[in-house]
Amino acid sequence: MNAKAATKKMDEHEGAPSEVNSGHLKSFIERIERLEEDKKAIADDIKDVYAEAKGTGFDIKIIRKIVSIRKQDADKRREEDEILDLYLAALGMG
Amino acid sequence: MNAKAATKKMDEHEGAPSEVNSGHLKSFIERIERLEEDKKAIADDIKDVYAEAKGTGFDIKIIRKIVSIRKQDADKRREEDEILDLYLAALGMG
Repeated sequence: MNAKAATKKMDEHEGAPSEVNSGHLKSFIERIERLEEDKKAIADDIKDVYAEAKGTGFDIKIIRKIVSIRKQDADKRREEDEILDLYLAALGMG
Repeated sequence: MNAKAATKKMDEHEGAPSEVNSGHLKSFIERIERLEEDKKAIADDIKDVYAEAKGTGFDIKIIRKIVSIRKQDADKRREEDEILDLYLAALGMG
């Protein structure tokens, strides 16, 4: 395990785990936090589009429903395609 | 309301709402779907970072906890700053 390869000895008197690569750990946490921020920014953009649609007179509850239905349809189509590929492969037609 | 300004008459025999700007509606839905895809891609990136951290020997449950604690701390600091600004403004020190 790489995390144990390059290690930093912690004070064992404190009962902490004896070995943690703090640089590695910090880097993972910071990458996650940056991505979480990006995700949050996009979630805010989505809210803005809904607000804009509402401002234009649309019922956003219905728009949410349409987006959800279209997602289900797309998921179902993808699933059916996968099963089709499986069957075609089983028949040597893949 | 703009959605009603440029309208497309639908067949009222079908009991549908009489006026919907379909181009506008479609544009909103497609913008939302594109953003949802972007959000999904980032969520997948986050999963990848956790998987990478796990592969490096880290306990990702603990990393999740640290990310959550740091977020709470940041939220709290932000909230305290806002109250501080409020009090300073109330005292004419803003």
